[in-house]
Amino acid sequence: MKIAVLGTGGGGRAHAAKLLELGHEVTVGTRDSQVTLGRTQPDFMGIEPFGQWLADYPGIELRNFAVAAEDAELVINGIDGYHAVDVLSGIAEHLAGKILMDYAVPFVHNPERAHPWPTPWGVMPALDPVDHDSLGERIQRALPEAKVVKACVTQEQETVVDPGSVGGGDHTMFVAGEDAEAKQQVIALLRSYGWEDVLDLGPIVCSRGMEMYSHLHSAIGFAVGGRFGIKVVR
Amino acid sequence: MKIAVLGTGGGGRAHAAKLLELGHEVTVGTRDSQVTLGRTQPDFMGIEPFGQWLADYPGIELRNFAVAAEDAELVINGIDGYHAVDVLSGIAEHLAGKILMDYAVPFVHNPERAHPWPTPWGVMPALDPVDHDSLGERIQRALPEAKVVKACVTQEQETVVDPGSVGGGDHTMFVAGEDAEAKQQVIALLRSYGWEDVLDLGPIVCSRGMEMYSHLHSAIGFAVGGRFGIKVVR
Repeated sequence: MKIAVLGTGGGGRAHAAKLLELGHEVTVGTRDSQVTLGRTQPDFMGIEPFGQWLADYPGIELRNFAVAAEDAELVINGIDGYHAVDVLSGIAEHLAGKILMDYAVPFVHNPERAHPWPTPWGVMPALDPVDHDSLGERIQRALPEAKVVKACVTQEQETVVDPGSVGGGDHTMFVAGEDAEAKQQVIALLRSYGWEDVLDLGPIVCSRGMEMYSHLHSAIGFAVGGRFGIKVVR
Repeated sequence: MKIAVLGTGGGGRAHAAKLLELGHEVTVGTRDSQVTLGRTQPDFMGIEPFGQWLADYPGIELRNFAVAAEDAELVINGIDGYHAVDVLSGIAEHLAGKILMDYAVPFVHNPERAHPWPTPWGVMPALDPVDHDSLGERIQRALPEAKVVKACVTQEQETVVDPGSVGGGDHTMFVAGEDAEAKQQVIALLRSYGWEDVLDLGPIVCSRGMEMYSHLHSAIGFAVGGRFGIKVVR
């Protein structure tokens, strides 16, 4: 399948590499491909420049957002939650009628809203929107013709593309969205990643719970000191 | 141990019955014990009047909040999240120096803040506080001399007192709080309930994640159509 992964961060790279391995035609989207390829220093997170990473994955194309989305049959949003609605709205015409799988969490970029309690992770996460709205719903409202499927929110993306690396894969993936067929296609993609237990939570409003889980996810992560998954035991 | 369970709802009843079975001296606290015992009709949730329930548990005492807390060595808060800070502040002198295990979630009582989307459960949950504060933190700030331990938030209380009823008990309980010894005592109590995997998340700020998980909990509950637990797979 022709799949575009929007965003060049660690999560987007994990999906792009896995999709290439699975035989898909993969394009990564970025704001300005020349600027992205021109970077030679690690970013503020210490992640290696995209151009260096890309050299290990011949076959993956880097294009500007609009071009990447235009050519794709399925689009994965790996743009950070703070910028996602703006960027996606700007290329809405190229997303109409397509499945848009979104795993972003709307972390607040303003550190003044974060709690000053000195956690092992610096500050607590802070979300906007939260509780009475969600990023998944905002994206669906901004792109009424796209079929938004919220998924891959409750794990690191390295775990998403390799579920067997945690507990032999015996943990749960959640999806939510308005379009039943789009969810089925995303579930099929997730099964090709290795997911066995995929739980359809229902409509896109369930994005709230998936995004708000990020607080508990952070706390569990620092308590267990490594990658983990959560399994719905029933 | 002398344990007070504050609140006469379904959750409080589950704890009181279990604690009695385990041989503890159990007092249930309520605003006005005469009013509580005078009720003869099920409440708005369809729960039988407390007096009827109590008849099956000789040995459990019903007292006003202050008296129940005053006599107890450990106190369990089963007062709904909307009223908890006010009620507990009013009996602060009887909670000083004691362990206060709190499982409440601060659900908003104002239906206008709830989302009108017609979920299977009517409306989405809505929380206040959320994200940059939590009920657990508010209670600890209001009662600086009490040792607040947030626990039993991510399950129905019927599951909390009978973890083996779901998946043979192979799921996870979370605790958080400032006082390490208080957490150890709560963990010992949870082990007596049957919990094997109890994860200490850290300080009381982790209440945020535990309370905010309620959105995902609701969505999972309606997707699986029954009681469940979540297991941290690592």
